[in-house]
Amino acid sequence: MTRIDDLPVRSELRGQTPYGAPALEAPISLNVNENPYPLPEPLVRAMAERVREVAGGLNRYPDRDARELRAGLAGYVTRATGHPVGARQVWAANGSNEVLQQLFQAFGGPDRRALGFEPSYTMHALIARNSGTTWVPCMRDERFDIDLRAARDILAEQRPHLVLITSPNNPTGAAIPAEAVLELYDAAQRARPCMVVVDEAYGEFSDRPSLVPLVEGRPHLVVTRTMSKAFGAAGLRVGYLVADPGVVDAVQLVRLPYHLSTVTQALAMVALEHSDTLLGYVERLRYERRRIVVELREIGYDVDESDASFVQFGPFDDTRRAWQALLDHGVLIRDNGVPRRLRASVGTPAENDAFLRAARAVRHEARPAGTSR
Amino acid sequence: MTRIDDLPVRSELRGQTPYGAPALEAPISLNVNENPYPLPEPLVRAMAERVREVAGGLNRYPDRDARELRAGLAGYVTRATGHPVGARQVWAANGSNEVLQQLFQAFGGPDRRALGFEPSYTMHALIARNSGTTWVPCMRDERFDIDLRAARDILAEQRPHLVLITSPNNPTGAAIPAEAVLELYDAAQRARPCMVVVDEAYGEFSDRPSLVPLVEGRPHLVVTRTMSKAFGAAGLRVGYLVADPGVVDAVQLVRLPYHLSTVTQALAMVALEHSDTLLGYVERLRYERRRIVVELREIGYDVDESDASFVQFGPFDDTRRAWQALLDHGVLIRDNGVPRRLRASVGTPAENDAFLRAARAVRHEARPAGTSR
Repeated sequence: MTRIDDLPVRSELRGQTPYGAPALEAPISLNVNENPYPLPEPLVRAMAERVREVAGGLNRYPDRDARELRAGLAGYVTRATGHPVGARQVWAANGSNEVLQQLFQAFGGPDRRALGFEPSYTMHALIARNSGTTWVPCMRDERFDIDLRAARDILAEQRPHLVLITSPNNPTGAAIPAEAVLELYDAAQRARPCMVVVDEAYGEFSDRPSLVPLVEGRPHLVVTRTMSKAFGAAGLRVGYLVADPGVVDAVQLVRLPYHLSTVTQALAMVALEHSDTLLGYVERLRYERRRIVVELREIGYDVDESDASFVQFGPFDDTRRAWQALLDHGVLIRDNGVPRRLRASVGTPAENDAFLRAARAVRHEARPAGTSR
Repeated sequence: MTRIDDLPVRSELRGQTPYGAPALEAPISLNVNENPYPLPEPLVRAMAERVREVAGGLNRYPDRDARELRAGLAGYVTRATGHPVGARQVWAANGSNEVLQQLFQAFGGPDRRALGFEPSYTMHALIARNSGTTWVPCMRDERFDIDLRAARDILAEQRPHLVLITSPNNPTGAAIPAEAVLELYDAAQRARPCMVVVDEAYGEFSDRPSLVPLVEGRPHLVVTRTMSKAFGAAGLRVGYLVADPGVVDAVQLVRLPYHLSTVTQALAMVALEHSDTLLGYVERLRYERRRIVVELREIGYDVDESDASFVQFGPFDDTRRAWQALLDHGVLIRDNGVPRRLRASVGTPAENDAFLRAARAVRHEARPAGTSR
């Protein structure tokens, strides 16, 4: 067998390992921000029925432009944000990762730069690399907020072609106020015409309103979203963007034709038809998130503000060791490489109880004998 | 609304239009090389049943490595080619377009060159562009064969990092002998370590054996295939590659995580379980292809040799006009931009009858009054 480094791979891939959480089995898995609620039985039945209807025609290519799905998503976004969005302003792909990759292919690429505020979703930098775009990280402050003064300076100096803003931020948790996004947008445009992409994968979990209405009158602003989290459909792979129709046109120049299967388009429509049920789970998860924050603080942890479906907490002198200790208690969470911090997805109430028990035990084990809280 | 050219898109995208056949309705559509046979009823039922089983778990991410599907595809390729292929040698994605894009991202990209033999599948050049790879076309001879002498010269001169060989070639039709592929492989390696990708999307329709066995002992050779054509599953979006396991490892560095949905993986497995039925349609299509070639020649057309599920024919002084004349007779075929040639997919016997009637009528209309064949 040949090793990767024996092949003529690109030099930046040498010595790399694939992105992804370690694939481990554990009694409780709170490591990849999945919605813990299985799809409800009526939705499962409706999905099977829809496949029964469309599968005969799978010998034909899908609708290349996913028109019905884009209209469905536009309707959902309009209802969810109160801001009218049309199908021409929406584009969908296999997960928001693919949407982001298409944006990088259209607006980034060789001899162009993309800037992001780290720590954040690490796929942004990897998608930059895969599209040949130079990645420029701008570090967040010690509370994981974007330092607007530093951001203005680096935007003026680096003049990026793309800016990525994750809100709520993953893995740290907090959403960014609309006013800050607008300041960053204006600062970026002052440097050069620049696409500003707001990654709102966890938008439905936030107490702040969606940033979708900001796209109005701002053709260089894009909001990406996903059905993986709020819709509990990570296995279905549907992400989308909301932007000026011109942005959708541009993305269509680089999308692979027929990228989104007939089945994916059909089942996403079925999920949208059940959005009231599915969004009910979001309410439960927001409630549980608040409970986890309160209880982790009671245990004695520092917990970062979260507007998302996960909680980042610490401090740990040795994150690897703390991660392993929690796993030894049967709970798998995520070490995202943020110094002194780990991230736990919000699960079902029973999963969260197990996580909190494990977090309490680990905290007690870590404390030297004879000390008290 | 903003126009594409008002946005900061990459300069090579300015003035471009999206890839794809014109989306027209016609009584008979033989334009995008779809398998004309709907999936059979037992397969449709089995697909609905499988979705019934897996849809509840769609809140979880798919198997990132698609292990079951890759084993299933390996089993199919082993049976179909008689050459033993293991799951570690197979990688799958949303259509062979995505497989090819991943190969370009790993082995092409900025400051690298990819060479293809044109006319061929035009997505190769577009995927090169989208990945920042420089595209080097090498023209085929007047019979659309690869001129090996010219190829050797251009390989030595251009020293590409990737070489694309479509066999059977689309849109022209003929497969390339294994010996020629090996000559091109060796010539490419003499210039530099170079990945040679054989695009075998139409492999099952060829009288020549698959080129899959050539990957043995050649870590720089990759064969890509698809379930869109022979399996009649264009709407399902499953393509795959067969290569050294090291190539699969390399592609996993650039694949988007969870790129292939749980449903796609599950339904592709169901289709593989029905491969005997589906491949029965391939036999019918090969028979019909031979009939179309014979009858088009009887009508007076030049017809290029075809090992695929389509036929390229001519000559036309004005391809656009001939294409429109056929459409006026109710038959939509494809103008791929090959001079003096059009391409028709093989349909059902009734569709092919209609196409041949239209082709005969167009031939007669085109002939000046008073002349005879």
